[in-house]
Order: sequence, then C-alpha cells, then structure tokens
Amino acid sequence: MKGVHFLISTLAILAFATFLASASDPSPLQDFCVAINDTKSPGIYINMHYITQNPVGSTVTPASVDQIAGLNTLGISLARIDFGPNGLNPPHTHPRGTEILVVLEGTLYVGFVTSNGDGNHLFTKVLNKGDVFVFPIGLIHFQLNVGHVNAVALAALSSQNPGVITIANAVFGSKPPINPDVLAKAFQVDNKVVNYLQKQFWYNNS
Amino acid sequence: MKGVHFLISTLAILAFATFLASASDPSPLQDFCVAINDTKSPGIYINMHYITQNPVGSTVTPASVDQIAGLNTLGISLARIDFGPNGLNPPHTHPRGTEILVVLEGTLYVGFVTSNGDGNHLFTKVLNKGDVFVFPIGLIHFQLNVGHVNAVALAALSSQNPGVITIANAVFGSKPPINPDVLAKAFQVDNKVVNYLQKQFWYNNS
Amino acid sequence: MKGVHFLISTLAILAFATFLASASDPSPLQDFCVAINDTKSPGIYINMHYITQNPVGSTVTPASVDQIAGLNTLGISLARIDFGPNGLNPPHTHPRGTEILVVLEGTLYVGFVTSNGDGNHLFTKVLNKGDVFVFPIGLIHFQLNVGHVNAVALAALSSQNPGVITIANAVFGSKPPINPDVLAKAFQVDNKVVNYLQKQFWYNNS
Amino acid sequence: MKGVHFLISTLAILAFATFLASASDPSPLQDFCVAINDTKSPGIYINMHYITQNPVGSTVTPASVDQIAGLNTLGISLARIDFGPNGLNPPHTHPRGTEILVVLEGTLYVGFVTSNGDGNHLFTKVLNKGDVFVFPIGLIHFQLNVGHVNAVALAALSSQNPGVITIANAVFGSKPPINPDVLAKAFQVDNKVVNYLQKQFWYNNS
Amino acid sequence: MKGVHFLISTLAILAFATFLASASDPSPLQDFCVAINDTKSPGIYINMHYITQNPVGSTVTPASVDQIAGLNTLGISLARIDFGPNGLNPPHTHPRGTEILVVLEGTLYVGFVTSNGDGNHLFTKVLNKGDVFVFPIGLIHFQLNVGHVNAVALAALSSQNPGVITIANAVFGSKPPINPDVLAKAFQVDNKVVNYLQKQFWYNNS
Amino acid sequence: MKGVHFLISTLAILAFATFLASASDPSPLQDFCVAINDTKSPGIYINMHYITQNPVGSTVTPASVDQIAGLNTLGISLARIDFGPNGLNPPHTHPRGTEILVVLEGTLYVGFVTSNGDGNHLFTKVLNKGDVFVFPIGLIHFQLNVGHVNAVALAALSSQNPGVITIANAVFGSKPPINPDVLAKAFQVDNKVVNYLQKQFWYNNS
Repeated sequence: MKGVHFLISTLAILAFATFLASASDPSPLQDFCVAINDTKSPGIYINMHYITQNPVGSTVTPASVDQIAGLNTLGISLARIDFGPNGLNPPHTHPRGTEILVVLEGTLYVGFVTSNGDGNHLFTKVLNKGDVFVFPIGLIHFQLNVGHVNAVALAALSSQNPGVITIANAVFGSKPPINPDVLAKAFQVDNKVVNYLQKQFWYNNS
Repeated sequence: MKGVHFLISTLAILAFATFLASASDPSPLQDFCVAINDTKSPGIYINMHYITQNPVGSTVTPASVDQIAGLNTLGISLARIDFGPNGLNPPHTHPRGTEILVVLEGTLYVGFVTSNGDGNHLFTKVLNKGDVFVFPIGLIHFQLNVGHVNAVALAALSSQNPGVITIANAVFGSKPPINPDVLAKAFQVDNKVVNYLQKQFWYNNS
Repeated sequence: MKGVHFLISTLAILAFATFLASASDPSPLQDFCVAINDTKSPGIYINMHYITQNPVGSTVTPASVDQIAGLNTLGISLARIDFGPNGLNPPHTHPRGTEILVVLEGTLYVGFVTSNGDGNHLFTKVLNKGDVFVFPIGLIHFQLNVGHVNAVALAALSSQNPGVITIANAVFGSKPPINPDVLAKAFQVDNKVVNYLQKQFWYNNS
Repeated sequence: MKGVHFLISTLAILAFATFLASASDPSPLQDFCVAINDTKSPGIYINMHYITQNPVGSTVTPASVDQIAGLNTLGISLARIDFGPNGLNPPHTHPRGTEILVVLEGTLYVGFVTSNGDGNHLFTKVLNKGDVFVFPIGLIHFQLNVGHVNAVALAALSSQNPGVITIANAVFGSKPPINPDVLAKAFQVDNKVVNYLQKQFWYNNS
Repeated sequence: MKGVHFLISTLAILAFATFLASASDPSPLQDFCVAINDTKSPGIYINMHYITQNPVGSTVTPASVDQIAGLNTLGISLARIDFGPNGLNPPHTHPRGTEILVVLEGTLYVGFVTSNGDGNHLFTKVLNKGDVFVFPIGLIHFQLNVGHVNAVALAALSSQNPGVITIANAVFGSKPPINPDVLAKAFQVDNKVVNYLQKQFWYNNS
Repeated sequence: MKGVHFLISTLAILAFATFLASASDPSPLQDFCVAINDTKSPGIYINMHYITQNPVGSTVTPASVDQIAGLNTLGISLARIDFGPNGLNPPHTHPRGTEILVVLEGTLYVGFVTSNGDGNHLFTKVLNKGDVFVFPIGLIHFQLNVGHVNAVALAALSSQNPGVITIANAVFGSKPPINPDVLAKAFQVDNKVVNYLQKQFWYNNS
C-alpha cells in the first residue's frame, strides 16, 4: 500500500443566503449550513507521504470543519493518523469529542486512562488491521506503533471540532509557561527538572 | 491489499455497578457506561472476505453499539462498506446520524439529495482513495463503485445507533406491504407495477 | 366546517439588539430570539381554500421558522394538511424532527416503516377525528384520506425546521437526475422504467 | 362542529427487548422506545364532551408520554384545550417545553410575559380560527376565550413531558402551604389575604 | 465578614477571528467563543456593599454571559444573593436553568413547588452555612433569611443565561398590565384587588 | 471565617414510581428524577476542617450526583476547594463539564491552557475574594494559593457528574502503569525518569 494520499474534498455547494453559520453539535437546523459558497473548488487535497519524520514519529491529518466547511452543525469529523516504526501519538485528550479508531495498516498498542473517580484505571489493547477501539470524550489516551513497519489508523470524532490537547505539550510547552512551582508540585519533581522541560521544543503532531 | 479482515473489538471493561445504561447521544454522564461486564472477551471478530456476492454487490459491516457495547452514550459509530465491481450501496437514509465517508480502496460515485425545501437538489462527486465526503443527517444518499476493481470505504456516523433505511426496500419490501394505492399514486405508476415490485425479494445489505 | 382558513401570525416583537440568531434545537439561550424587528406586522395570512387540486390531492401548509420568525431556537413547528377525497400525503421523511399528528376532520389511513435493523416493519392505523399518531424522527411515513369527504389534520414537529423529503420525488425527480444505473439496481427495474419515471412531473405538496 | 371527541391512540407496538427506556428529549437512540408491549390496545380514548363546567371554564386534555408511551425519547407532545364562554386557561408555565398553539374554534385573547431581564414585557394577541402563536419555554402565559361561544385550541409542546405549573395554584395551593410571610412580602399583601387565599380550593384544569 | 465585594472578572482573551458567536447550551464548538476582543480589561467589578435596602430585603448579583462574555456557549453561570434580616428572594423561576445553591453565611428557609402533575408539592428545608440545595429547571422556588443577621448564598445555574421570572412581578407588574379579568379569575379575587395590585411598585431584586 | 463546615444536604424526596433514572445532561424529562426514596435522611454532612494536610495542600469536596441524588438529570454540580498556604489544585481537566469558580477566601493564581489548535495558550489571573473565572470544558487548568493564609473557592460545573482527571496522576499513576516508552517519548525524558515517577505515590485531592 504505497503512495497513499489523502484528498479531503469539501462539498461543492451552491451558495445559500445562509445568514448564520452556527449551531451546536447536537442538532442541525438545516440540511447543511456553510458560510461560504464554494461551487468550483474540487476539494482540499492533503498529500500524506508518510510525513512522520518528526520527534514523535506520527502525523495526524484532520478532516474537521476547518478543512470541510460542509461539516458545520453536523457533529462529526475524521482524522487520519500515520505512524512510522515506533511512532507514537502521545497522550492527549479531545475536550469536545469521543473518538472511535480503526487500524488500516500495521499494529498499534493503544490505551486510555479513566478519571480519578474511576481509579485512573488504564485500559489497553493491541490492535491489528481492522480492529476498532473507542476513546471516551475527554479521557487521556495514546497510540503506539508496535509493529516493524508503518501503521495507519483512521479516527472519527463526535464533534465538528473536537479539539486536541497533547498533555506533555500543553503542560510543559504552553505559551507563556505555567508557573514552575505549579508543575514541580504537581509532578513531584524539583524546579530544575521543570525548567529543563519547559525549555524543550514541544512538537505538536496535530 | 489482500485478505483484509475487520476485527471489531469491544472494550474489555471491568464491571461497574452501573445501574442504568441509557442516555442520549449528546452527552455522556460517566466515563463510559455499559450494562454488561465483559472483561475476558477479546473482541468481536467480523471477518469480511469481501462478501459482496449479493443483488446489490456491496456489504455494510457496522460497528455500532450493538457490536461494541462500550459505545453506549458516546454518540458515534463506524461502518465498513465493501463494493464489488459495479457494486451499489443503494439510496438510503440514516434517521439518527450524519455520515462522513472516506474511500480506502477504489473509486466511488456518491451523492445525496437535499430536502424539498432546498429543491431536491442532487450533489454528487467521484471519490478516489483518500477522498472524504459528508452525507447530512436524514438525507437520501448512495455510493456506486465505478471502478473496475473492488472498492472499500469507511463511514463514521454521529450516533451510537444511527439506523439505516434502504429506500426501495422500506417502500416496496415492508412487512406487511404498504397499501398499493399509496405507492401507485406516490410513484406515478399503476397498481400492477406496485404489485410486481412488492413481490420481489428485497435484499438489505445493511 | 366551511371556509376554513389558516392564518399564521408571527409574534409581534420589539427589536432587540440580538446580535446572534442561531442556536440548536435543544435549548434556547434567550426568552426568544429573532433577527428582524417586526412590530407592525399583523401576521402571516395563509388562506387554505382546500387547494387540493393537484396530483396527490393534498396540500401541506407549514408554520415553521420560515413563516414564524419567533420560533427561532425554540425547537418546534406546526403544519396543517388538507386532503381531498382519496388525497395522499405521499411517503416522506422529516430529517430533523419527529411528527405527532391529530385528525381534525375525516378519516385517514396512516403508517410508518421502521429501519432495516428493526425489519422494515410497517405500522398502520385508521384514524378518525381526534385520533393522535406519532411518526418517529427520520422514518418513512404517509397519510391517505380513506373517507368520502375532505380530511384535515394538524401535525406538530420537534424542530423549528424539520425538513421534508418526499421519497419518490427526491429519488426520481432530483435536479439533476440520479444516475439511472443506481436507481435501476436499487429498485430492481430496468433503465427504461427509470428513464420514464425521471421524465415525469414530480409535484411536491410541501 | 358538534360532538367533537378526542381519541388519543397509542401506537400499537410489538414488544422489543428494549432494556432501557430512557433518553433525553434532544435525540432518540432507536426508531422508538417503549417499555411496555401493548399490541392489543386500540388506543386511549378520551371523550371530551366540552367538560368545561369548572371554576376556570376550560379543560386541558394532554397527549403526552403518560398517555402515549410511543412518545418516549421523541421530544414532542400535544394537548387539546376546550374553553366555555369566558373560559380561561390561567397563567401558567411549562418548565420543560415551548408551546405552539393553533385555534381550531372560536376567539382567544392570549399572552405571555418575558423574564425580568427583558422587562416583564407582556405580548398579547387576539387569535381567531387558524391563528398560530408561540409561548417560549418557561415563560408565564395564558389564554382567555373572548368570543361568545365555546373555543377549542390545539397546543404542541417541545417535550414528551413538558409539565404544567399553574401559577396561582402552585403559589397559593401548594401542599403543604408556603410560609405566609414569604407570600405576603412577595405579593405586597398582608398575611390575612394570604391566609384567605391559601384556604381556597385551587382547581387544576390540567 | 465585612466589606465583602464581588469582583467579576471576565476572561482576558485574545481576539480570534471568531465569525460566529452562537451555539446552544449543550455543547461548545470551540475552546471558547467570544465576540469581542478584550485583552486589557481587568474584569467587571461589582461592589456588593450588602445593598439590601429594598422592598424585599435581598439583592441578586448575576455572573451570567452578560457580565462574563467568556461564558458564551459554556452552559453555566453564577449568582450571589445577599439577604438582610428577614430578607426574601421572592418566588421565581428560571426558564432555562436548574439552580444549585450553597449558603455562605446565615440561615435560609428555602423551598420549591413541583408541577401540577406532581401535585404542586412543596419541598422545603432550613439551610445553614455550607448546606446545598437544588431547584430543578422551571420550578417555582424562594429563599427567606430566617436568621437574625445578614445571609449570603451562592447559586450556580445550568445555562449561560438562565433568565429569572419573579412570579408576583411578572403577573401583577407586567408592562402593559395583563387583562384584570384573567388575573381575577386565576387568583380567585375580585377585580378591585387585581387593580390595586397592578398599581403597586414591583421591585425586581434581580 | 473560622470553623467553616460544608454540609451537603440531599433533597428529602418522596418516593415516586419513577421507573427510570437516566437521562442526559441537556434536558430533564421530569421535575426531578431519583432512583431512591430517601424521605428521612437529613442530608449528607461533610465536615471540612480544612483537611489540607496532604502532598498538594488542597482538598476538593464534591457535591455531585453521587452525593446529591436529586441532581440526577439536572446537568449541574458544585465543589468546594480548600487550600492551605501554597496549596495547589494541580493541573487537571473535567471531561464532561465547564467550571466557573468564585474565590470565597484568600488569593489564588489560576490558569488554563487552550488546545493545540489554539496554540496551547496559557491564560492566567490572580483572583481575590469575590473574583470569578471560567475554565472551559475539557481544558487543562489549575489553582494555586499565592496568599499567606488559607484560601477557599467554590466551583460549579455544567454536569451532574463532570469527572476529574488529575494530569500527572493519570499519566504517571495509572493502574496498571502506562508503557514507559510511551511516556519517555511523550515527555522527552529517559525511561529512568519515567520509572522513578511511576513509583511515586500519586495523591488525588479529588
């Protein structure tokens, strides 16, 4: 399976006098609802090329409302995740969506951690091609390529704009940095470790 | 890409004293919520084998809450669609979900029709591998394999149980049959045609 | 019961500096929310005159957000349906709303078909004056006047803009037409029949 | 229009192994969802007979989920309101639903009051047969028959169980009574008046 | 506890090109969503000073979306309630939100009345410092200071704009007044009493 | 303000034949809905005593549906947070709720970090008594006591069961531990550091 590309095509939509573009995820109020008339555009083309030459070895390509205006008000989106060998989609959460993931190529070790009230319980599974797994809304989760070759997964999320918060990056790479006293006490390390971490380059793969 | 299989794995979940199983699609009230404790089960394995030897030449394999109990209250599900050459996923609607579809293999001609108030406008597109398309909630839509080989698509839907209504089947193959006078007037054909159609075998590929 | 008319009156509403007009059906964020100040207008008058001289013998008069701006964000609307003798409100769906119907005059044979997963089961009932029936969101349903005189029904729908998709019209009368190969295979007829049907005049009674 | 009756028919529904009965108003998770199998029952018959011989001169006949189990999870209900001459549906609110009302017979003076932040503004209108009016969720509203004959209206509400709170009855007729000091200060009357009012018979027409 | 003040600070938020400001309470579509860029503002300062010298002896200070733009789409708000001795927050409803209340200082007698269908049942409780009580959406409720000193409570509501309807004020102090015949029949008093009441000054403490 | 206690009182509720207990956060279907009849119980008493002698120096006392059954279906809850000097409520998220916080005593340095798409931007503010701040659903946030004395805050959350995920604890203290390779790569530290951290005692203050 070479030369995979990922062409995200928007809906070619006639212009309506849609004077408003908003609504919440639960229910649309029209067949569809886009702010911009885009009848000519053949779509948004995102060539993937396994661009996984980065610190974490994985790349997320979203197909959310920012890429596909026609998703507005419809409460769903997609993302493709490419992993090099040992590639990791590091621990993260989606503040506005549950994720359901299917493995297209390769073998992934995946997991999520429940909330404090449920004991910070870790659920993991090794997924092969065709396996499906669910990451409930807001819970910390990750995927690691444990095969010897590239891996590809497709994820669907229950929001037109689910958001992504990569934990380490948001905590140690925020702009500006969080007060080191907060992080030193939270992570049980001394301030030197926090300062060191806050100076690293934090790469967002999504 | 041979021997593709499709293993749907449920979450291996410890039993909680979850006394209720329900909630609506919009928002869960717990991390997750399943009625049945299923810690041992390795998952639900659905071997696909391109089982497209049927009247329409396509097969839909759902991964909804009926297959994955852990989806309960989380508002999302998946389906895999396999098409033989000229295979058709015939015109249908999902009464409780929007669909976002990505082509994994092959070439599909897809489309949906807007509601009466929007002019029964048909939007179509030919999709190749990696293309994404959206079918808004409740609208009639279809996918046709227009390539010379098998095609595979993955669809995500914005409900744990979106439902499927294959139009021709529900109209002409309901049990018991709809009064032929209704269908003759609606479809502008005479009652003989309706009677003929109601005697056909209506195959649901989903 | 002669000379029935149907006057839809909008709310006479003072102008607010309502800077936004949108919200989803579930919950409003204000007492009410309209984009246009319309304090003088006495209302929208829709004279019915039993205008059922059309191919299906029925007429639907909506009172949705397009007719009554004050319905915006409030998640409900009405429609009046007039039937001549043998008049039919042909099989259709509402993509964004459940319908509850009450018969005001006459006798109707009504029904809906469940989704594939529930067996495309047909539920029907003959309704007389005062009878109430429910058509769940997104399911195909119809009403036929089986009395010897005119019939009138009132329907409420669980959306400010539920939408209507008349099945035969959307399938055979879309603009532009659906590829005949799709319809021939879906309806188990040959392409000639499809071509014939696609050339008919498809009258939308709503 | 004599001898009007009001037959509320439930859906005759085959029993499913529906293990859960609940969901919120926004979205169902099945085609329909009832807890009780009721295949034999022909419906619930509520003969109206203009039973308006009561202190307020009006009677409300609900068709909510308590009367029609099939409404469960579908987010809508109906009510019929019969008014004798001068009959009043006294000021009340629906805590869980917006109401849209259509006059079937007679002439009604109707109104609602906005919330404090919107100035306790009163919006009123005299409605004749066929007129439609909207009462937004949670706002105090009323209907008065100002014609010389009986009047009939049909109301739809955006919940399967919208609830009714008749203001005077809830305030002065609660069980047990509210502390009179609360009501005396709130209504700017002395405690004797409150005591007098709390001893009256408070008739709920709904 | 003197000199208590109540400084409501808005989020200091960088301007986004947020082209839309709306959504419903259930679910946001962004991290946050404000129409106005307000990076400099230190917040909205509302000095409380126990300003309870008014007819009801209580003052409500809201922290809703009108005060804190950053609450937009987030489905929650706060209010502080100050009571002088014998101070009353008179019977009222919130049309768009449930209230959860905690007593910060003093002793309150609180209660709510259920809807007609639940028997207009009154639930009351005397709350001391630290006690928590819930007033379900749309139900009539009140709080009375039954201690000898000032009391303070904090209320959270399940909407960015829950609204407040003070019952006596909306009924007898609407602008313009409700037809006295409506109120005389509803409250079982004669028109003179209604006229007297409609001429009073109705003070909204919120 | 000494000897503050925090008595959480449940609603003393008569038993109904409430056959179902569930619904989602958006909308209740009854006035209230509890599974258990608890007419005698005076409430749940949670004495606080400033129990902040723990590693983070803060204690969270929830008043969610687990403590107050009457909150079921009502979409809101409270929590009290006590801080000793330098006490920290460490970085955490609520997977199912937005938080609005008001400072009751003392001075807090608070902040939240936006999602990757919004640049992992940190918003902070120093809050004094009476200040209000909002933490949008799902975003990482924290509060630190920067005064010289104890501090107290009250938080309201937009769910009956918002959940809490303390970031460091869920990441390094999950049961069983996350594969160290995942954490080493995600946090840019070597496996020894991860192993060290995974052996610490992770105290949940909530």
